[in-house]
Amino acid sequence: MEQRNLKRTHFSFMLPIKNNKVGISELKPIKHPATFQKSLRATLIIGQVFSLFPVQGVSSKSASNVVFVWCSWKFIYLLLSLLGQIFITMMCLYRVLHNTSSLNVTTPVIFYGTTCVTTLMFLRVAMLWPALVRHIAHVEDQEPYYDKNLTYKCNTTCAVVLSLALMEHILSLLSAFAGTMVCHGENLTHQTFVKHFYPWVFNYLPYSFLLGVLTQFLHVQSTFIWNFSDLFVICMSYYLTSRLEHVNKQLLSAQGKYLPETFWRAIREEYCRAAQLVRQVDDVISGVIFISFANNLFFICLQLFNTLEDGIKGNGECSSRSKGNTSSLLGGYEAAAYFLFSLVYLIIRSIAVSLIASQVNTASNVPATVLYDVPSPVYCVEVQRFLDQVNGDNVTLSGLQFFSVTRGLLLTVAGTIVTYELVMFQFNTQPQSSDASSTTATLQL
Amino acid sequence: MEQRNLKRTHFSFMLPIKNNKVGISELKPIKHPATFQKSLRATLIIGQVFSLFPVQGVSSKSASNVVFVWCSWKFIYLLLSLLGQIFITMMCLYRVLHNTSSLNVTTPVIFYGTTCVTTLMFLRVAMLWPALVRHIAHVEDQEPYYDKNLTYKCNTTCAVVLSLALMEHILSLLSAFAGTMVCHGENLTHQTFVKHFYPWVFNYLPYSFLLGVLTQFLHVQSTFIWNFSDLFVICMSYYLTSRLEHVNKQLLSAQGKYLPETFWRAIREEYCRAAQLVRQVDDVISGVIFISFANNLFFICLQLFNTLEDGIKGNGECSSRSKGNTSSLLGGYEAAAYFLFSLVYLIIRSIAVSLIASQVNTASNVPATVLYDVPSPVYCVEVQRFLDQVNGDNVTLSGLQFFSVTRGLLLTVAGTIVTYELVMFQFNTQPQSSDASSTTATLQL
Amino acid sequence: MEQRNLKRTHFSFMLPIKNNKVGISELKPIKHPATFQKSLRATLIIGQVFSLFPVQGVSSKSASNVVFVWCSWKFIYLLLSLLGQIFITMMCLYRVLHNTSSLNVTTPVIFYGTTCVTTLMFLRVAMLWPALVRHIAHVEDQEPYYDKNLTYKCNTTCAVVLSLALMEHILSLLSAFAGTMVCHGENLTHQTFVKHFYPWVFNYLPYSFLLGVLTQFLHVQSTFIWNFSDLFVICMSYYLTSRLEHVNKQLLSAQGKYLPETFWRAIREEYCRAAQLVRQVDDVISGVIFISFANNLFFICLQLFNTLEDGIKGNGECSSRSKGNTSSLLGGYEAAAYFLFSLVYLIIRSIAVSLIASQVNTASNVPATVLYDVPSPVYCVEVQRFLDQVNGDNVTLSGLQFFSVTRGLLLTVAGTIVTYELVMFQFNTQPQSSDASSTTATLQL
Amino acid sequence: MEQRNLKRTHFSFMLPIKNNKVGISELKPIKHPATFQKSLRATLIIGQVFSLFPVQGVSSKSASNVVFVWCSWKFIYLLLSLLGQIFITMMCLYRVLHNTSSLNVTTPVIFYGTTCVTTLMFLRVAMLWPALVRHIAHVEDQEPYYDKNLTYKCNTTCAVVLSLALMEHILSLLSAFAGTMVCHGENLTHQTFVKHFYPWVFNYLPYSFLLGVLTQFLHVQSTFIWNFSDLFVICMSYYLTSRLEHVNKQLLSAQGKYLPETFWRAIREEYCRAAQLVRQVDDVISGVIFISFANNLFFICLQLFNTLEDGIKGNGECSSRSKGNTSSLLGGYEAAAYFLFSLVYLIIRSIAVSLIASQVNTASNVPATVLYDVPSPVYCVEVQRFLDQVNGDNVTLSGLQFFSVTRGLLLTVAGTIVTYELVMFQFNTQPQSSDASSTTATLQL
Repeated sequence: MEQRNLKRTHFSFMLPIKNNKVGISELKPIKHPATFQKSLRATLIIGQVFSLFPVQGVSSKSASNVVFVWCSWKFIYLLLSLLGQIFITMMCLYRVLHNTSSLNVTTPVIFYGTTCVTTLMFLRVAMLWPALVRHIAHVEDQEPYYDKNLTYKCNTTCAVVLSLALMEHILSLLSAFAGTMVCHGENLTHQTFVKHFYPWVFNYLPYSFLLGVLTQFLHVQSTFIWNFSDLFVICMSYYLTSRLEHVNKQLLSAQGKYLPETFWRAIREEYCRAAQLVRQVDDVISGVIFISFANNLFFICLQLFNTLEDGIKGNGECSSRSKGNTSSLLGGYEAAAYFLFSLVYLIIRSIAVSLIASQVNTASNVPATVLYDVPSPVYCVEVQRFLDQVNGDNVTLSGLQFFSVTRGLLLTVAGTIVTYELVMFQFNTQPQSSDASSTTATLQL
Repeated sequence: MEQRNLKRTHFSFMLPIKNNKVGISELKPIKHPATFQKSLRATLIIGQVFSLFPVQGVSSKSASNVVFVWCSWKFIYLLLSLLGQIFITMMCLYRVLHNTSSLNVTTPVIFYGTTCVTTLMFLRVAMLWPALVRHIAHVEDQEPYYDKNLTYKCNTTCAVVLSLALMEHILSLLSAFAGTMVCHGENLTHQTFVKHFYPWVFNYLPYSFLLGVLTQFLHVQSTFIWNFSDLFVICMSYYLTSRLEHVNKQLLSAQGKYLPETFWRAIREEYCRAAQLVRQVDDVISGVIFISFANNLFFICLQLFNTLEDGIKGNGECSSRSKGNTSSLLGGYEAAAYFLFSLVYLIIRSIAVSLIASQVNTASNVPATVLYDVPSPVYCVEVQRFLDQVNGDNVTLSGLQFFSVTRGLLLTVAGTIVTYELVMFQFNTQPQSSDASSTTATLQL
Repeated sequence: MEQRNLKRTHFSFMLPIKNNKVGISELKPIKHPATFQKSLRATLIIGQVFSLFPVQGVSSKSASNVVFVWCSWKFIYLLLSLLGQIFITMMCLYRVLHNTSSLNVTTPVIFYGTTCVTTLMFLRVAMLWPALVRHIAHVEDQEPYYDKNLTYKCNTTCAVVLSLALMEHILSLLSAFAGTMVCHGENLTHQTFVKHFYPWVFNYLPYSFLLGVLTQFLHVQSTFIWNFSDLFVICMSYYLTSRLEHVNKQLLSAQGKYLPETFWRAIREEYCRAAQLVRQVDDVISGVIFISFANNLFFICLQLFNTLEDGIKGNGECSSRSKGNTSSLLGGYEAAAYFLFSLVYLIIRSIAVSLIASQVNTASNVPATVLYDVPSPVYCVEVQRFLDQVNGDNVTLSGLQFFSVTRGLLLTVAGTIVTYELVMFQFNTQPQSSDASSTTATLQL
Repeated sequence: MEQRNLKRTHFSFMLPIKNNKVGISELKPIKHPATFQKSLRATLIIGQVFSLFPVQGVSSKSASNVVFVWCSWKFIYLLLSLLGQIFITMMCLYRVLHNTSSLNVTTPVIFYGTTCVTTLMFLRVAMLWPALVRHIAHVEDQEPYYDKNLTYKCNTTCAVVLSLALMEHILSLLSAFAGTMVCHGENLTHQTFVKHFYPWVFNYLPYSFLLGVLTQFLHVQSTFIWNFSDLFVICMSYYLTSRLEHVNKQLLSAQGKYLPETFWRAIREEYCRAAQLVRQVDDVISGVIFISFANNLFFICLQLFNTLEDGIKGNGECSSRSKGNTSSLLGGYEAAAYFLFSLVYLIIRSIAVSLIASQVNTASNVPATVLYDVPSPVYCVEVQRFLDQVNGDNVTLSGLQFFSVTRGLLLTVAGTIVTYELVMFQFNTQPQSSDASSTTATLQL
C-alpha cells in the first residue's frame, strides 16, 4: 500500500484533493491523536518558513494527507533558496581562489556550502517523509498512547532554540553595525553596511539595494537552516526516546513480578517495533545528523581557535576602541558580546543535540536490567529473545552510519576538539597577516 | 516504602526523633552489623568535617536513621562554604578578565570552580544518600555477610590519603613562606603572606585579618574536598568490589562441582542484586567520579607541563637561590620539594583511584570463567542466564555514563596525557613572559 | 579433489590440454553461468595486461580451466616487470642515500617500492586463485542464481577507474612536458624530457632511448597497478555483497511470515556459506587490501600536505608563469590542473574503495533485523543459531586482519588524516630548501 | 596438593632430594614427554645464565622437580645482579639531576631502570613457576599429545634472537671503540674506553679495572635481559598457540561431519582447559609482557626520533669522518652500521613479539567458524555452550590486563608511534646543544 501511495505522490500535484480523500478511505479511521504528527507540527511549519520541507499536510491530523509534491509553491521556494545559496557559495569560492589563502577566508565557503548540502539533505528527508509518517501512524495505531508532554517539549525546544538563534543574529548585526560605523565614519547607509559585511559579494559585484536585501535574506536563512537542523534532530530524538521509554515504563513496573509469557511476548514485540522505528527514522534523517554534527564540530574548533588566539575582544580591523565612540549600543563591546554569546550558544546547542540524540540509545538499553531480574519460574524463550535483541541490537541514531550517537561519542568529540585546539594553537606564534583581521567579519554567522 | 520515607525526610528536621523511631519500627530488626554503614562511617564523618555530606545519622547503626535535612547546621555549613568558594572563584575570574591571558592565571579559576561543582555534586549525593543506604541495608539483610577487612581497608585508606593531603598542604605553606620571605625580606607577617599567596583576592580587596583567615580556610577546604572526592570513590569501590567478590568466592569454591540448579539460581540472583547495586550506586556517585577524573587529568597535564618546562626547581620570581638564605627550613628547596611531592602524590592518587574503581568491573567478569567450566550434566538454564548476564551486562562505575571505569581506561588516559604533554611541550620554545613566573604561585594548591 | 588439482597445476605447463579435459570431466557439468567467473573476466584480463595475474583460463566459463602456471609467458612477463620495478626502486633508494634527506625525495621510493610489494601480493593471489575459483564455483553450483547487474557493475567500474587513471597519467605527462619546456627551452626532445621527469634514473645513468622508454613503461605500469589494486578490491566486494544481499532479499521477503523451520535452516546454511566465502576471499586478498589502503592513506596525506603548503599551482622550479609562454596546451596551468585532478581523484577513489568494501560488512548485518522480528510461534533453534552467527560473527574484509573494513573505518582514517595534516602543516613555517622544489616533480605519479 | 607443595618448597633447599622423591611418588607416573617442560628447557637455561629464573629443575623431565628456592646460588646470583643494576641506575639518575635536562641523558636511566623492573618481574614469574608447571603437567596428562615442532621452534627462535642480540652488542662495542679512538687518539686502553662509554659511572667515580669490567658485565646483562623478555613471551605464546591449534585441528577435521554430542563435549572441555591455561599463564607472565611492550614502544620512538633527526650517520662528537682514519674495521661507519642495525632489529623483534603473542588470540577464535557450520541434526547444547564461550570469552595474553595482545594492537601502536614521531619531529628545528651530541653514546644499548 505504501508502495502504491509513494508512486501516486509523484503525480499528486495534478489531483491532490482526490488523492487525499482516497488516502483517508484507505487507512483505518484514526481514533487516537497522532502523537508524531502533533508533536512535530510546530517544528515542521517553522522549517517550511525557511524553505525546507516542501511537504503538504504537515499540520493535518491524518497521516494520509502528508504528501510530497514536486510542483508546489513550497518546492519552488526551496529551489529558489537553493539557487541563491549556491550563488553565494560560488562568490565565496571565487574570493578564496583570488586571495592569498587563509583559514578565515574559507569559512564563508564552508558556511554557505554546508547550507546548500543541508537544504539538499532536507529535500531528501521531505521526499521520504510521507512514507515515514504513514508507517509511524500505522505503528501508533497498533500501540495507541498519547504523550502530551512530548508536544510540549518539542514546542518549548523550538521556541528556545529559535529565540537564541534570533538573539545571536541580532548581536551579529549589532557587531557588524558597530564595525561599519567605526570603519566608514558615522554615515551608516545600507550600502556601506552590506559592503562591509558581505565582502565576498560586493567586492566583485556592484551594489544594488535588491542584491543587498537578497544577500541579507540568504544570510538569515542560512543561519536558521543551521539551527533548524539541530532542532529537527532534537525533536525526532524526543519522539523516539518517548516511544522506547513507553516500553521501559511497562517493563520497570513489571520488575520482579510473576507475569505470563504473553506479557513478555507483547512487550518484546513492542520493543521490536520501536527498534525498527528508530532504524527507519535513522535511514531518513541520518544525513541531517551527519551534516549537523560535522558542522558543529568544525565551527566549535574554529570559533574556539579564534577566541583563544585573539582574545575575546577580537582584533577589530579599524581599531574601534582606540577612539572613544560611546554612540554604539553596547559601548564598543558589540563584537566581544557577539563572539562570546555565539561561542557559548554553539557549544551548549551542540552538547544538547548530542545528549538528547544519545538518549535514544540509552533508553534502548534499559530493558536489559529488568530482563536479568525476571524470576526463574517465569523465565521463557520470549525473555531470552528480548534479551538477545537488547544486547545484540544497536538501537541508535547515526550519522550516515559512520558513527553512532551514544553518550561516549560526546567524550570522543570533546577529546578531538581539545587535541585539534592544542595543535592549532601553535600557529599562534606566527604573526597573522593584516588580511586575516579584515576577514574576521566573515565569522559573524 | 522508600518513596514514603523520602517524602517524609523533607519535613524530618521538624520531628527528627519521631521519624527515627518510626523508621526503626518499619524496618525488620537488623541482626547483622550493617557492613556498608560501618565501613564508610569514618569516611563520611571526615566529609562532614569539610562541609560536604549534610546527612544525619551516618554514624548510626540503623539505615533508617540516615536522613537528609535541609534545615540543619550541616546544611548551613555547606551553604556558607559554597558561597565562600563561589566568592573566591569570582575573584579569580575577575583577575583573569583583567589580565593578559595566560594558562597559569586560569588555574585558580579551575581549581576553585571545580571545588564549587564538587560541593554541588556531593549535595546531590547527600540528597540521594538515605534512599541508597536503605536499599543497601535491604540487600544486606537478604544476604548477610560481614567483611571485617572492608572497614579496616576504608579506614586505612582514609588515614593515608588525608595524611598525604595534609603533608602536601604543609609543604605548600612552607614553599609559600619561603617565597614570601625572599620577596618581601624577613618581615613575614600574616599580611605579606596572604598578599603573596592569594593575589587573586588581595590585589583587588584591602587586607583584613578576617578575610585572610577566611581565604586560608577556603584554600584548605578546597584542597581537602578534592582529596575527599577521590577518597569517597575509593571507599565506595571497596564496598562494591567486596560484594562482587563475595559472589566470586562462592563460585570459585563451586568450580567443577556437581551442584544442583537451586545453587546456580541462588548465586545468579545474588550476582544480579550486586550488579543492580553497582548500577544504583553509580547513579548516585557518577557525578563525583566524573569531576574527580576530569580534575585529576587536568592537573596532571598542567603540573607535568610546568615541571617539564621549568625544571623541578621552578622559576622563582624573586630568585631565592641567588641569595644565600639558609634561614628557611629546607634550605631554599621548599618550592622544589613541594612541586615534586605534589606531582608524585597526584599521579599515584589518580592511578590508585582508577585501579581501585576498575576492580568493580574486573570482579564482575570473574564468574564467566567458572560458568564456562560447569560440568555438562548440571548445566541448566540458570547457568546460561548467568553467563548471558556476565557477558552482556556492563557492571561498572562510570563518569556520568560518558566513560566506564575499566582497567583499559587508565591506559587510554595515560596515552592522552603523553600526547597532550608532547604537543604542549612545544610551547616551550616560546619565551615565557615575566607575568607567568609571578603566577606560578597559583599552582600551590 | 581440490588438493589433487592444486598438486597437478604445478606440472600443468607440461600437459595443459589434458589437465583441462580431466578437470571438466571431474566436476559436475555447470548448467548455470558462473557468476563469479563472468563478472570478473574483464577485470582480470586488464590485470593480465599490466603483468599481474599470471593465471590461465580466466576467460573460460569453467572453473576447472583456471590454473596457475609457473612456466608461462604471463609469469615471465610478471617476473620481468618485477625486476624492472625493483631496479627503479633501487635507483630511487640510491638517490635518497646520496641526497640531503627530504620528504619529497623519499616519495618515489615509496611509490615504486609499493608497486613491487603489490606485484608480489598479486602473485600470491594468483597462486591461490585456482583453488578459490573452484570453491566459489562449487558454492555457486549449490545455490544457483545469476546476477546480471553484477557483471555490468564490474565492467562499468573498470571502465571508469581506468579512464580516470589514463586521464591522470595524461595530465601528468602534460605537466611534465610543460615543466621540461620551461626549464630546457623549446627544444623538447625525448632525452631532456626523461632526464627532467626521472631524475632518479638519469642523474646516475647515461641516457639511452631504450632505457628512457623502459623507464616510461615502468612508470605507466606502476600507476596502473596502483589503480588496479583498488579496482580489484572493488570488484571482489561487489561479488561478495551481491551474494550476501541474495540472502538478505529472501529474508526481507520472509519478514513477519509464518515459515517452517526448514526455510530458516536453508537460509541459515546459505548465509553460513556466504560468510565462509567472505572469509576465504579475505584470506586470499587481504594483503592487497592492506597495501591498497596503506598506499591511499600515505599519498592522500602527502598530496594534501603538498597542496596546502605550496598552494595549488605548485612552486614551479623554473618559474614557468613568469614568462608569458602561451604555447603550452593549458596555458601554464598544466601542473595546477594535474595536481588538483590527481588529489580529487585519489580522495574519491579511496572513499569509493572504503565504502564499497565496507558494504560486505553492512550486508552481513542486515539479517539480524529480520530475525528479531520472527513471529513467536515459528521461532526455533535455527533462528537462534542464525541470530547467534549474525551477532557473533564478524563477516568483513580486512587488511591482513589488522583492521576490518567497516563504515566506521572511513571516519577513523579521516580523523587520522586531519590530525596528521594539522601536525605536518606546522613544518610550513620552516623555509623549504631549493632542493625541495626540484623534487616536486617526483610527485607526478 | 599444590598448596602443600608450594609450602614445602620454601624449605626445599634443606632437603631437596627427598622432596623430589616425594613429588614423584605423589604424581601419577608421566608416560608422555612433558611438552611444556621440554620445549622451554633451552629458553629457561639461557634465562638462568643471565641471572633470571632462580628455579631448580627446569631441565628435569618431571614437573614435580621444579622448585623455587630462596637460598640457592641462582637466587644469590639474581640478587647480586639486581643490586648491580640498581647501582648503575642510581648513578644514571644522579647524572640526570646534576645535568641540564635532555632527553638523551634520561635514556640510560630508563634503560637500566627497566632492567631492574624486568628482573623483579622475572623473580615473580620464578616464584609462581613451580605451581604453573605442575598445573600444565596435569593438563598435559589429561590430553597427551606431543608437538615435536614446538621444541624445534622454541630453540630456533632462541638461537636467532640471541645471535642477533650478540651481533647488535658487538656492533655497539665496535662503534664505541671507534668513537673512543677518534676522541682519545690511538691509545685505546680499557680505561679510556669505559670512561667514554659509561660516562654516568666514571664521570663521578674513579676508574678501577674491576669496576670497569663490572660495568661492562652489567651492560651485557641488561642488553640480554631485554632481549630475553621478548624471547620468553614468544616461547610461551608458541606453547599456548600450539595447544589451541591442537583443538582447532580436531575441530577442522570434524567440520560438516555428523558427530555425536560426546565429541562436542570432549572438544569443548579441551578448549575450556586451554582457555584457562592461557588465563593462568597470563596471570604469571603479564607483567613481563607489559614491561616488554612498553620498553619496545619507548625505544622505537626514541631511536626513530634520533635517526630521523640526525640522519643515519649520527652527529659524532669528535668528527671521526673529518679525519681520514681508515684504521677502524668498518672504515668510520661503525656508528652508522650500529644505529641502522639496532633500529631495524628492534622494530622487527617488536613486530615479531606482537604478532606471535597475538596468535594466541587468533587461534582462540578459529573454532567459531566450525561451530557455525555444525549440521542441524547434531546441533546440541554442547555446541551452543562452546560457541557462547568462543564468542564471549576473551582468550588472550595481556599486559597486566591493561591491553590485550591482539593483531589490532599492532596497528594501534604503529599509529601511536607515527603520531609521536610527527609531533616530536617538530623539535627538530630547535638547534641542539652540544651537550646532546656527547650523550648520543648513551644510546648504544
